[in-house]
Amino acid sequence: MTQRQVKAAVLLIGDELLSGRTQDINLQTIAKFLAPLGVQVAEARVVADVPDEIVAAVNALRSKYDYVFTTGGIGPTHDDKTADAMAAAFGVNIDVRDDARAILEAHYKGAANLNEARLRMARIPDGASLIANPVSRAPGFQIGNVFVMAGVPSITRGMLQDVGHRIEGGAVVRSVTVRGKGIREGDIAEALQGLEEAAEGVSFGSYPWFLPGDFGVHLVARTSDLAALARAGDDLKALIRARGVEPEEVTDA
Amino acid sequence: MTQRQVKAAVLLIGDELLSGRTQDINLQTIAKFLAPLGVQVAEARVVADVPDEIVAAVNALRSKYDYVFTTGGIGPTHDDKTADAMAAAFGVNIDVRDDARAILEAHYKGAANLNEARLRMARIPDGASLIANPVSRAPGFQIGNVFVMAGVPSITRGMLQDVGHRIEGGAVVRSVTVRGKGIREGDIAEALQGLEEAAEGVSFGSYPWFLPGDFGVHLVARTSDLAALARAGDDLKALIRARGVEPEEVTDA
Repeated sequence: MTQRQVKAAVLLIGDELLSGRTQDINLQTIAKFLAPLGVQVAEARVVADVPDEIVAAVNALRSKYDYVFTTGGIGPTHDDKTADAMAAAFGVNIDVRDDARAILEAHYKGAANLNEARLRMARIPDGASLIANPVSRAPGFQIGNVFVMAGVPSITRGMLQDVGHRIEGGAVVRSVTVRGKGIREGDIAEALQGLEEAAEGVSFGSYPWFLPGDFGVHLVARTSDLAALARAGDDLKALIRARGVEPEEVTDA
Repeated sequence: MTQRQVKAAVLLIGDELLSGRTQDINLQTIAKFLAPLGVQVAEARVVADVPDEIVAAVNALRSKYDYVFTTGGIGPTHDDKTADAMAAAFGVNIDVRDDARAILEAHYKGAANLNEARLRMARIPDGASLIANPVSRAPGFQIGNVFVMAGVPSITRGMLQDVGHRIEGGAVVRSVTVRGKGIREGDIAEALQGLEEAAEGVSFGSYPWFLPGDFGVHLVARTSDLAALARAGDDLKALIRARGVEPEEVTDA
């Protein structure tokens, strides 16, 4: 039986990712978290802290993919515009919600310390469910098929722990990577294309590296069929041995 | 005189970026390269090695922004689909071109070593101009306002050296970053919003960090007006001092 393919998009929100100030790592974190659940990230976008851009992106992605995962823009400061943008995208109201406020009151030891800025983090679009934040408490939320998380990497990772159980995954795509030191892509391209054409349902990728005095290629096969994956791994090793190089299998995460 | 704002998009192409296999660093490289030229990256997308997805993304982005910079998918293997997708997006023909072939023949020491796979890297859409590749020679190309570069980071960096002189930039946006150790965002959010509202043309951002036993916030002001930037930096320092913390100015790249 072939399981269905479940596809997701990742939407990274924040001026700092586009200015080059901050190096994103959340896309990789989310992709690696979802893969064993049977969800493949099929597209990602990075948008600025501009409400119209956030709305347009999330609406484009949530209609096209099974799930959307966003990070960034749900903090207490004025440049955090994601929660309001999500409400606008879904055409629902947004306001401070009691359950979210209670989480923050407990964290900040009473309503007196919960100033207006912090209360912004209790603003949740109507119809959303909260996503627990084990790091700094202010919750994320799920609305429809969209999971709205914080952008600070440690908090993103923490919130994912309250996301996995809500996901209905499909086929788990696994990969095998074979390393060929000293191999040039141009010398194995034809043979690799032959493998791709012969092995239905397996996709092959080629990723060269270039370092001073060192080069080579990583060949990757990806499929949800374990028997086909094993054959593909053997084929890739044979392809590299045929160039007189002993292949090295790299353990994939 | 106010210079115009010049905006760009970055399009990262490759299954490996979406599977989590590869951590992208090209977005940051390109953003930092463009900033001093007076070009701001306003959006980025990551798409798989799927021709229709590449075509749709580049057409959406090239009509919306002054420039588009793509990385990935121009190598010799079957999974490199970018060059053909660019030709399709622009509605032009693509074929092996003599100037690109000559570069490869020189590199591979003669036509005999230039097999069919390598010749793929000489396939250039009609009307494009070549982008020199100082690392592995196979060229990128510019077509219209789109710059098509390789995805291997060292090659991307190399190709950018042949891109800068083609760019007509606008206002250079500069930033100042002030670090406040032990400051919580919720305690400075209101004051920060006040600065944003008072300082026209300056955008302020707040980026908290959380480490075991250590936390704080980086406050960033961005503008193309140098006098306003200096005032904003002073204002941010005063804002942090008002919380009883001595601010630290961080040198921005």
